[in-house]
Amino acid sequence: MGVIGATGMVGQNYLRLLSNHPWYEVTYLAASPRSAGKKFSEAVAGRWLMPTPVPEQYKDLVVGDAGNVKEAAGKCSIIFSAVSMEKEKIKELELAYAEEGFAVISNNSAHRHTQDVPMLIPEVNYDHTNIIPIQRKHYGWSTGLLAVKPNCSVQSYVTPVHALREAGYFVDKMIVTTLQAVSGAGYPGSSSYDMLDNIIPYIGGEEEKSEIEPRKIFGKIEDGRFVYDDSIKISAHCNRVPVIDGHTACVSIHFKDKKPEMNEIIQIWKEFKSLPQRLELPSAPEHPIIVRHEVDRPQPRRDRDMDKAMAVSVGRLRECNVFDYRFVGLSHNTVRGAAGGAILMAELLTAEEYIK
Amino acid sequence: MGVIGATGMVGQNYLRLLSNHPWYEVTYLAASPRSAGKKFSEAVAGRWLMPTPVPEQYKDLVVGDAGNVKEAAGKCSIIFSAVSMEKEKIKELELAYAEEGFAVISNNSAHRHTQDVPMLIPEVNYDHTNIIPIQRKHYGWSTGLLAVKPNCSVQSYVTPVHALREAGYFVDKMIVTTLQAVSGAGYPGSSSYDMLDNIIPYIGGEEEKSEIEPRKIFGKIEDGRFVYDDSIKISAHCNRVPVIDGHTACVSIHFKDKKPEMNEIIQIWKEFKSLPQRLELPSAPEHPIIVRHEVDRPQPRRDRDMDKAMAVSVGRLRECNVFDYRFVGLSHNTVRGAAGGAILMAELLTAEEYIK
Amino acid sequence: MGVIGATGMVGQNYLRLLSNHPWYEVTYLAASPRSAGKKFSEAVAGRWLMPTPVPEQYKDLVVGDAGNVKEAAGKCSIIFSAVSMEKEKIKELELAYAEEGFAVISNNSAHRHTQDVPMLIPEVNYDHTNIIPIQRKHYGWSTGLLAVKPNCSVQSYVTPVHALREAGYFVDKMIVTTLQAVSGAGYPGSSSYDMLDNIIPYIGGEEEKSEIEPRKIFGKIEDGRFVYDDSIKISAHCNRVPVIDGHTACVSIHFKDKKPEMNEIIQIWKEFKSLPQRLELPSAPEHPIIVRHEVDRPQPRRDRDMDKAMAVSVGRLRECNVFDYRFVGLSHNTVRGAAGGAILMAELLTAEEYIK
Amino acid sequence: MGVIGATGMVGQNYLRLLSNHPWYEVTYLAASPRSAGKKFSEAVAGRWLMPTPVPEQYKDLVVGDAGNVKEAAGKCSIIFSAVSMEKEKIKELELAYAEEGFAVISNNSAHRHTQDVPMLIPEVNYDHTNIIPIQRKHYGWSTGLLAVKPNCSVQSYVTPVHALREAGYFVDKMIVTTLQAVSGAGYPGSSSYDMLDNIIPYIGGEEEKSEIEPRKIFGKIEDGRFVYDDSIKISAHCNRVPVIDGHTACVSIHFKDKKPEMNEIIQIWKEFKSLPQRLELPSAPEHPIIVRHEVDRPQPRRDRDMDKAMAVSVGRLRECNVFDYRFVGLSHNTVRGAAGGAILMAELLTAEEYIK
Repeated sequence: MGVIGATGMVGQNYLRLLSNHPWYEVTYLAASPRSAGKKFSEAVAGRWLMPTPVPEQYKDLVVGDAGNVKEAAGKCSIIFSAVSMEKEKIKELELAYAEEGFAVISNNSAHRHTQDVPMLIPEVNYDHTNIIPIQRKHYGWSTGLLAVKPNCSVQSYVTPVHALREAGYFVDKMIVTTLQAVSGAGYPGSSSYDMLDNIIPYIGGEEEKSEIEPRKIFGKIEDGRFVYDDSIKISAHCNRVPVIDGHTACVSIHFKDKKPEMNEIIQIWKEFKSLPQRLELPSAPEHPIIVRHEVDRPQPRRDRDMDKAMAVSVGRLRECNVFDYRFVGLSHNTVRGAAGGAILMAELLTAEEYIK
Repeated sequence: MGVIGATGMVGQNYLRLLSNHPWYEVTYLAASPRSAGKKFSEAVAGRWLMPTPVPEQYKDLVVGDAGNVKEAAGKCSIIFSAVSMEKEKIKELELAYAEEGFAVISNNSAHRHTQDVPMLIPEVNYDHTNIIPIQRKHYGWSTGLLAVKPNCSVQSYVTPVHALREAGYFVDKMIVTTLQAVSGAGYPGSSSYDMLDNIIPYIGGEEEKSEIEPRKIFGKIEDGRFVYDDSIKISAHCNRVPVIDGHTACVSIHFKDKKPEMNEIIQIWKEFKSLPQRLELPSAPEHPIIVRHEVDRPQPRRDRDMDKAMAVSVGRLRECNVFDYRFVGLSHNTVRGAAGGAILMAELLTAEEYIK
Repeated sequence: MGVIGATGMVGQNYLRLLSNHPWYEVTYLAASPRSAGKKFSEAVAGRWLMPTPVPEQYKDLVVGDAGNVKEAAGKCSIIFSAVSMEKEKIKELELAYAEEGFAVISNNSAHRHTQDVPMLIPEVNYDHTNIIPIQRKHYGWSTGLLAVKPNCSVQSYVTPVHALREAGYFVDKMIVTTLQAVSGAGYPGSSSYDMLDNIIPYIGGEEEKSEIEPRKIFGKIEDGRFVYDDSIKISAHCNRVPVIDGHTACVSIHFKDKKPEMNEIIQIWKEFKSLPQRLELPSAPEHPIIVRHEVDRPQPRRDRDMDKAMAVSVGRLRECNVFDYRFVGLSHNTVRGAAGGAILMAELLTAEEYIK
Repeated sequence: MGVIGATGMVGQNYLRLLSNHPWYEVTYLAASPRSAGKKFSEAVAGRWLMPTPVPEQYKDLVVGDAGNVKEAAGKCSIIFSAVSMEKEKIKELELAYAEEGFAVISNNSAHRHTQDVPMLIPEVNYDHTNIIPIQRKHYGWSTGLLAVKPNCSVQSYVTPVHALREAGYFVDKMIVTTLQAVSGAGYPGSSSYDMLDNIIPYIGGEEEKSEIEPRKIFGKIEDGRFVYDDSIKISAHCNRVPVIDGHTACVSIHFKDKKPEMNEIIQIWKEFKSLPQRLELPSAPEHPIIVRHEVDRPQPRRDRDMDKAMAVSVGRLRECNVFDYRFVGLSHNTVRGAAGGAILMAELLTAEEYIK
């Protein structure tokens, strides 16, 4: 298993989460040419941002050049991509790794709307892995594959809405206001001068991602490509708030036709389990959705770490004066919404033997 | 002019704002029995929360007992009420002051839905002062009157929506998510343990106020009482965020029938002026609505103090995928939304000669 | 094992830390009469402040009345005291529990200067447990005992200074400025209005504790009572800062006579181990002192959780223009400085068979 | 009057403070080549950081190239330098402006230790302006001059210590721990990821400045150059804390020989006035030192703005266990400690007719 972009914040989160993984061992790290050739401990000296120290097993790994696909050859079969470059370069690079035979799992937005690349939330659209054979055929890959993770902002509302869809209740309109943590902007990200005694009611590109990505996730495969679900309309207001980790979403939902009772929704959310739970994937939360009953929960600092920081916490379900219901959702943006979500994708693809 | 509840946070804001007022002079201060009989400087020792020192002219005023209406007699004609007690007591007390002949201007929610008490945003429903003669007749008051200020959370969206109504564009559905400052909870208010690296997605009673109060403000007087506007439905999500002052609102609006173009809205907001501006009331902002064109404004720390902290700043007007438009509104909760808004009400009632 | 004051912040930390303890099982919980008789899960509903949920095993325990010593009888042998009442009451109550035969381990300051009560940092003055037989004789206790934990503010500098003393280098003058986390004030503690965009340069009673307690810890037992070390003078400036957990101290030290080289200090700190490490007590950190070499460490959020949040992190050792050296120390105030430190004391007393 | 480096945070503060200055009018603005040629309002679009809008009078000024001294010729006589480039370039540039005949007042550290350049706190070492004729002779300047402002971190303790020196009490040892605001690092400065729920116990170069600069300020002119005071030893611990504006210092002081009583110190500080007060310079605070008597003051958010943000607030004077006394000092780092302090220097030099 390799991590490219290993020195950045998302890369570091991968390494932290993979340090005791029961299935995977990190055998290759790569970053920008500036870090290439150094020991990992030197490459991240003064730049390690995690709350636990650099795991011992990575310290002496010599960092490769992420831009040089050949360097990874023979060192691993999965590549987690957390590189930070311009979009077109990332597109090419991720394809090149897949072309070389690697299973590429990416956090980046570059390929999110590539027609035969699945954008996965394993509990929601696990069946989108069915595109892999089509993808392989299209590109002529045998072991290579490319799968991407959606934006961190969508995690807190897509799973709750999906659970309702699965129970036969279809949301067709949805207004979402997110209060997003500063770690979502990477490091250094927002200036402290902007984030003390302040909020920023804008995050570049985030509202578009929050509105469109769910439509691919809820979509289906037709004629070898993804057809987006156009039965759901989402309007997103995205804000940056002075919180370290954990994106909160205030959500108003309207159902297309029939709508459930409030206690039925609670029941559906509480009981929701999906393929990752049935397969007992190591990173899968026991309960993908945790329902809080206190009037003032979920809260980022108190709820973001629930169930390995992989659960979505929901609360404050109540009627909406304009739509049908309102609720608050919360998920950990750098775990569930980034590295943890990507590792769960890899586990799913491994369990389904797309990755061997 | 007297302030009852003078030692609390709202009371202090009154005193700060009134310390150089061209029309009014504070001649009476009252608070709880604990403070009564002390010099004001002693009563607030260690509890003065304003960014400027206790104004000299108040230091030696002897604090009265707010619960004893007679103490105020002869000392002033206007009473600003910022007392903190249980609701029923406040209801009685405010009526007792009015009964005694005072013009009572209140921040409290106790009388907001009393049938012949106007709840005023002077730029929006200044004509609701027409209830005063009816009120006086009903209670048998000659100089006494009672007028109240709406909740601090509504300021940032009611004025922008009103300006559109006045131009003939009627919003009928509206979903609002507020990000409210900690000063809105008074002092000590929220625990720092709750407000560092966290947000609280709940403020008791705030959503109901945010939804219902605008309907009285937009309502009209019929048969001697207020009839609420039921053509507008509001759904509010209220959050407490780590900001000192300034409530932000993320708003999605839907128009009943015809809807304006985006540039028309901008024009309407920019040009909006109302009676307080025409009367040149001392606390009236020159522009009640300030339109920001930057992608990431308004922001609480940067925009809350605009135009004596009395202007509402709006920005990020854009189309909404679900309703017609979205925007962000901001107003200073302890000035525009509390003491400053109440002083502007007094000025309006003075200019209209209800207060003499 | 019982926890009295179980519903407060320190009590909750005990429960969190004890939930998987290899030696101890919590069998008794007590709190104020208001909570007594309720199930623990009900007693803390809406008041549970920990980052992980209420551990399952406590949920159904019926909360006792902490003021009623008899209720605990037969239910446990150790009592962790985290009650919050006035000082004299706590003094009596803790003695009453010890009188009843319990080994009382207290976080409270009430008995810190009681002449035959040890105030323990297990790595520093473990030999102060020798007072226990004297204490028992004095009070006529057989199984009862009383031991207390020092203030959370001293942890970050007492252990580093002790390690140097043990190596033969005696600090005689010390100026310490602490930057203390809000959790040190309990809940709700400081107002968010005070702790956003602000620091408070004062914590009631904290400077005195920070100056005097180390002198008892460095003292010795003579004639059956503690004689304080008067060879060390400490001046403390204590500040509250907007940090959730983790007290930082900026320390300047002067040595009495001979002084070590800088690299010798580093060596001493790195190699420092003490009795808890030799006894392999479950809560003992592997390294009581962790030396950071980065120019800008330790930092509260990055270093407070090191080694089960039980290690003291030190860094920035450099010469002082006025004294000999300067450094920065950091420890987790609610773990090392409160519940975790107290549990380590219990482990030491158990290993030494004072608790059976 | 011209401002070079006008688009940065310090430059913007100059413009904000000068917008209503009774003596000076800003007639020239310059910045980096990137901004040169643009209208000022365009050059700062999206980068204006002040709490009040861009003052009208600057909006249409065309920004010059700060690196081109000739562009300023004829447009003003005073140049405020707030440029941000590498140190050697700044040294050259500031000399070049002085060579061109401008009175150069600089915030930058480049010339702070140049032998005949005064580093001024106008209330403290106003007599250091006596170096100007020597400086002019040395460089062959007639109207040109160069004077610099010390570091923002020293303001909160140098003036209080100076007031005591003037009264005959000489501090010879001093240990200072600063808690510095994020605005001191400019914009974007520290990452929000570092400054939420955290403090950084290190600011590059700041401790050295905090220790050495006061020795030049307290020094005297001998043989045409500054001789530093070596009778005072300062040890500084500098921390970055999550505060927007306002540097706090926790100070322990030791007197060389005789020491004042505590009430004498209070008296000295309260009564302290100096040349800027006698000259009634427009930016001079009425009281350069404000003494707070509350146990928990000064605090940055509550006290930084006192007396036009130009006063130093002190409090918590108490005995020190190790030295003689301890106190807390506070000053506004971007006003008193930067632009405001520099404008006061210009006023002093104008009043003394070094600037005409």
